[in-house]
Amino acid sequence: MNELAQHAAADLEALRAASPLVHNITNYVSMDIAANTLLAVGASPAMIHAEEEVVDFVEIASALVLNIGTLSPSWVRAMHAARSRARTRGIPVVLDPVGAGATPYRTAVAAELLKDGVDVVRGNASEILALAGAAMGPTRGVDSTHGTEEALEAAQVLAREMGCVVAVTGVVDLVTDGARRVLVHGGHPLMAKVTAIGCSATAVIGAFAAVVPDRARAAASALACFGVAGHRAGEGSAGPASFRTRFLDALYTLSPEELRREARIEA
Amino acid sequence: MNELAQHAAADLEALRAASPLVHNITNYVSMDIAANTLLAVGASPAMIHAEEEVVDFVEIASALVLNIGTLSPSWVRAMHAARSRARTRGIPVVLDPVGAGATPYRTAVAAELLKDGVDVVRGNASEILALAGAAMGPTRGVDSTHGTEEALEAAQVLAREMGCVVAVTGVVDLVTDGARRVLVHGGHPLMAKVTAIGCSATAVIGAFAAVVPDRARAAASALACFGVAGHRAGEGSAGPASFRTRFLDALYTLSPEELRREARIEA
Amino acid sequence: MNELAQHAAADLEALRAASPLVHNITNYVSMDIAANTLLAVGASPAMIHAEEEVVDFVEIASALVLNIGTLSPSWVRAMHAARSRARTRGIPVVLDPVGAGATPYRTAVAAELLKDGVDVVRGNASEILALAGAAMGPTRGVDSTHGTEEALEAAQVLAREMGCVVAVTGVVDLVTDGARRVLVHGGHPLMAKVTAIGCSATAVIGAFAAVVPDRARAAASALACFGVAGHRAGEGSAGPASFRTRFLDALYTLSPEELRREARIEA
Repeated sequence: MNELAQHAAADLEALRAASPLVHNITNYVSMDIAANTLLAVGASPAMIHAEEEVVDFVEIASALVLNIGTLSPSWVRAMHAARSRARTRGIPVVLDPVGAGATPYRTAVAAELLKDGVDVVRGNASEILALAGAAMGPTRGVDSTHGTEEALEAAQVLAREMGCVVAVTGVVDLVTDGARRVLVHGGHPLMAKVTAIGCSATAVIGAFAAVVPDRARAAASALACFGVAGHRAGEGSAGPASFRTRFLDALYTLSPEELRREARIEA
Repeated sequence: MNELAQHAAADLEALRAASPLVHNITNYVSMDIAANTLLAVGASPAMIHAEEEVVDFVEIASALVLNIGTLSPSWVRAMHAARSRARTRGIPVVLDPVGAGATPYRTAVAAELLKDGVDVVRGNASEILALAGAAMGPTRGVDSTHGTEEALEAAQVLAREMGCVVAVTGVVDLVTDGARRVLVHGGHPLMAKVTAIGCSATAVIGAFAAVVPDRARAAASALACFGVAGHRAGEGSAGPASFRTRFLDALYTLSPEELRREARIEA
Repeated sequence: MNELAQHAAADLEALRAASPLVHNITNYVSMDIAANTLLAVGASPAMIHAEEEVVDFVEIASALVLNIGTLSPSWVRAMHAARSRARTRGIPVVLDPVGAGATPYRTAVAAELLKDGVDVVRGNASEILALAGAAMGPTRGVDSTHGTEEALEAAQVLAREMGCVVAVTGVVDLVTDGARRVLVHGGHPLMAKVTAIGCSATAVIGAFAAVVPDRARAAASALACFGVAGHRAGEGSAGPASFRTRFLDALYTLSPEELRREARIEA
């Protein structure tokens, strides 16, 4: 029996038992689906962005998720303040560098948050390559133009230099802390046709990191849930909207035992 | 035959006939589902937040709904300006104090809006307890950690002191104007797994208040619709996402006659 | 065989082949459904609003969509900057004047964007009448109180004076460049019960305009897709939420050949 799949099952059970409060400073497009995904997996979501209260909210949160999809200066200031307090408190900080590489502004914001210190970064191959300064060409919008394979080397370097876990999602997902490398299989092509499902994965990594001290394991367990629920939802979906419904339902009904049996994680 | 259920049926019929324009200054997470819920029940939603136009928009609206879920200073200023004009015009103002008690900022904003004068407040037990200064412990994020029962006394005091109607939603919903107390049963556990369904209930209370002068009755009728549609949708749902779809469909197809038969409201 | 339906089929095929990156500065309510609609039809959506990066993002986009649904001053400044750069680059600019006529602020913002130069405007009859200065009464919120028929004359005058294409959507959709007039039939009454489906139509016009130089043809082809997918989705829908799911699925699975057969476009 796969040890990593057993970890994933135990982690999902721990998440459901703790129902961690996940503080998201995230983009407008993702708010509905990210909150619903966190609820479906068993966490408690909150979307709070005002500089006037983010630091106070971090005090009661169990994880902080920063997503730059629709950033603006006041949101960036709130992200920095919340990040700083979260690190001091010792709760995990997860960064989603949406569209890094697409404009100088967002690349710089993502790089600065990363440099200041985060626990996990989750992006597609293009975003991770841009962040690692290794992009072989201009990033195209917020969708990826590079394969996971290509970003593997960049992810490991980034993880080592920044002292964080890097997750690169795509047809196959990669999680690395610079030393270890884990691949997560599963999912379904329709996942790429539902907006902000990657942002939702980042949020769920935050929920797992709230209950799993090993951040690489937390990220792999979160992505394993997405892999299994995505695979299950894909069968019989008539298109991306019915897939979205079935995916959230599948995530909600997924038992630790089913996750243990169906997760496809390899070291 | 239950008189309150008959009221609810008549109120739903009045709402559908008038299709009131409901002006929402609400949080980002709830915008999609709140607008769709208002459309499903028969109202006309608008989400307008700029200080440059909220007062002008209140002029043509039939109800104003204020929701502090993702507040920030400029939105709060717009809420105050809109609230003031709405009260002068005599259209109902409904407040959703999302996460009151979670941070000093949002507790203060909610309390000030309430103090300035609103017609109905709708929250979960924790939020109402925080607002009433009666919280027995720190509020946890935006989800409730207290039962409706516990908040009953606080709600009545709040309603009396503030001269408004208070609705506390949970497994059983409570509506009080300080003197009268109405309980609304129904719904389904999956409602707690769909983000912003509480915000949507607040919006629909606004729609009912636009056509029903008795604010307590308006709130009870709105929650009765949610109770019946939630109960219907729950049967056969595969999870929270299919529940959401079925709930909105059920709200749309709910007839006044069905509401009269199935509503479970007790004085 | 209808030549316009053949155009629509060819245009859908071109869109799917190019998968154009559509830059949206749009309202909060529409973000989820507009992004998912663009993905379903075959385009690549991005929602980017910060003044710090919109001009840079326009450089890599294939179309710009401006939607004033939840406007505020900083967003309006970003719209102007993005619009200006897009016109210089020669990529199409599509404007959705949501709620024009409802407040002086939004009417003025929409009129100024239009005056500065856009390629296509898409609105309901009330919005187009307000923009054309021909409204026969106050606009009511964001839903239309006028028929397409009534707005026909206003649309043609507006198109001629502003040198743009005007699309008026309703039970029957009208597209005009001031000289030519095309009517698009189809759709379903439930479309009016799904929030921001009009905003999504505007976004999809942007996607078609990115690959079809004739802007009137691009708008007609986009609306023909909506007409066919809406008609298909309407059959068997239990209400507005299941309709929304079925509509997005229908848009995703719609083949050029089916569009050619089922599109109801007339010159």
